[in-house]
Amino acid sequence: MSDAFAIIMAGGSGTRFWPLSRRDRPKQLLPLGDGDEALLAAAVRRTSELIAPERIFVVTNERLAGPIAKMLPEVPRQNVLAEPVGRNTAPCVAWAAAHVRRIQREGVIAVLPADHHVTDEAAFVETLSRALDAAAHGDMVTVGIQPSRPETGYGYIEVGEPIGEGVHRARRFVEKPNRQRAEQFLAAGNFLWNSGMFFFRADVILDAIATHLPGLGDAVRSFDEAAARGDEASVVAEVYPTLPSVSIDHGVMEKAERVSVVPASFGWSDLGSWTTAWELTARDASDNTLPEGAIAVDTRGCYVRAPAGKVVALVGVRDLVVVDTEDALLIVPRDRAQDVRAVVDALSKRGDERL
Amino acid sequence: MSDAFAIIMAGGSGTRFWPLSRRDRPKQLLPLGDGDEALLAAAVRRTSELIAPERIFVVTNERLAGPIAKMLPEVPRQNVLAEPVGRNTAPCVAWAAAHVRRIQREGVIAVLPADHHVTDEAAFVETLSRALDAAAHGDMVTVGIQPSRPETGYGYIEVGEPIGEGVHRARRFVEKPNRQRAEQFLAAGNFLWNSGMFFFRADVILDAIATHLPGLGDAVRSFDEAAARGDEASVVAEVYPTLPSVSIDHGVMEKAERVSVVPASFGWSDLGSWTTAWELTARDASDNTLPEGAIAVDTRGCYVRAPAGKVVALVGVRDLVVVDTEDALLIVPRDRAQDVRAVVDALSKRGDERL
Repeated sequence: MSDAFAIIMAGGSGTRFWPLSRRDRPKQLLPLGDGDEALLAAAVRRTSELIAPERIFVVTNERLAGPIAKMLPEVPRQNVLAEPVGRNTAPCVAWAAAHVRRIQREGVIAVLPADHHVTDEAAFVETLSRALDAAAHGDMVTVGIQPSRPETGYGYIEVGEPIGEGVHRARRFVEKPNRQRAEQFLAAGNFLWNSGMFFFRADVILDAIATHLPGLGDAVRSFDEAAARGDEASVVAEVYPTLPSVSIDHGVMEKAERVSVVPASFGWSDLGSWTTAWELTARDASDNTLPEGAIAVDTRGCYVRAPAGKVVALVGVRDLVVVDTEDALLIVPRDRAQDVRAVVDALSKRGDERL
Repeated sequence: MSDAFAIIMAGGSGTRFWPLSRRDRPKQLLPLGDGDEALLAAAVRRTSELIAPERIFVVTNERLAGPIAKMLPEVPRQNVLAEPVGRNTAPCVAWAAAHVRRIQREGVIAVLPADHHVTDEAAFVETLSRALDAAAHGDMVTVGIQPSRPETGYGYIEVGEPIGEGVHRARRFVEKPNRQRAEQFLAAGNFLWNSGMFFFRADVILDAIATHLPGLGDAVRSFDEAAARGDEASVVAEVYPTLPSVSIDHGVMEKAERVSVVPASFGWSDLGSWTTAWELTARDASDNTLPEGAIAVDTRGCYVRAPAGKVVALVGVRDLVVVDTEDALLIVPRDRAQDVRAVVDALSKRGDERL
């Protein structure tokens, strides 16, 4: 076990998994891998291989804090931090890092997303360990994923010279590229996908925040002072809505000096859509992922979810995503799964609460 | 109003409309046209334009008799006849015709299916009237539908010389043809689809049954004798299982001498599958039939049914049949809707009650 801390960011409200995902049951609370384990529960479980649950903080919103605390009985209730409003990742990281700094000034922190999928958990733990070691020396560290295709949906990190066993200088962060640039990155060989995982000491990240996002730095100081008075909640409620909505990548990491990257390859996916869920889930001989009791006749490449006990019958269909819930049913070709946004927009426009 | 009688055959247990149709809710009890009216209710309603409900008999099985009586409050309860077992249409017609003969020896009867769809109801009533008139003179009369395509799923009737206004001799009945013969029939111009509607006097059909199906004739006599004793139910229960399973077409009509046919064209369909339901139902500008509240993005030619209040979202799909119920969901391309039998077979094989 490490004596590090973890901050798991679980405030997302992804709409790409509608109709399974809803406002009160976003992606991170759904079991989108194999089996019944929610993505967040899986994230906590694999992190706790290295970091004790009492040192894991989970940051989410007020609506989800109760359900999340219930889902994660091993995490102390006071470690589930509820943001009054979402302000992207920089305020989230700053507030949780402040909690760590109060416990241990130079505490090393792993910042991890709650809604990603990892296939090779042993490799993940090894990467985590390596990145925490690098961060202990005062660097800000990211994990870069070896790309397997010219993906335009991710940011990239250009890898620089090695600075230790399995650790390199990060030359620069690159925003999501177009297809042509993505292909150049893949061909160049020294560009990795930005996994959204970050590692740093509490004092290092909070100093960097004070430098690059001084307003947020001031807010953190007011949180600390309020916490010392036993009055943090009301100050957070007052100050949070005034904070800038900015990502930790853009607001701090890209501007920082000593940033390094740990190249990794542990079957990572950000589970961006139902298509990705199909790719990651166990499939039958006809490339289908079907619920128990389904009947599939001359059917290939389909990803189907349905309530337990419901009989789903597919005859003569190909490459469809079918997601059935009590009150909604989605049918979309697998290669258009990202267009589910159009459905959520339409529901939103008509004020339908079935978001 | 006519002083004729009607026998509506409502014993079918069609599986082609699974999952909406079930053992206890077969096709004739479903609202498969536009609106909420069940096919059987529509059949009774359009028949009662000409024949008073007290003169309408509905023949079904014991399981459905209660629900049907409830659905048709205008039909006297004793006019809903429950066969102890299904034995195709000849015993059904014979038993119901015996009821008519007890009331009026030469009563003219219209035998009508419960599960067909009629678009032009005024034309239907006109045809009904013409066929009843022809039957009053002692002929056995059928209705032949002007074919619109070389359909191989229907039987045909070859039309002979005219014998009255809109009435022809029926030269012969032809079983379902193969494609080539169906095309010849269509080209020849004097072949009509057999609509499964028959018209005759009670005495005429029962005499013909006594001649061509003597065993069934004997059974009818025993039913009449039992009815006179007030003991019909127990005799029917005893005798019915011993009756031959034979259709009125094959067992009597094809062998009878004076058979005539009324050519007609009233937007008739036997509603053979979900594909036909799509053809008959009102469709939107993208050729979709969708439940209220559905969201369709870049979607064409789909027929969708779902429980009230459920949001169905379709993105980028074409020509699908989607039928969603509380406990089952079917997805099949429109041109393969008849393959739903494969699903019902699979459910049956595994002993699933969700038939």
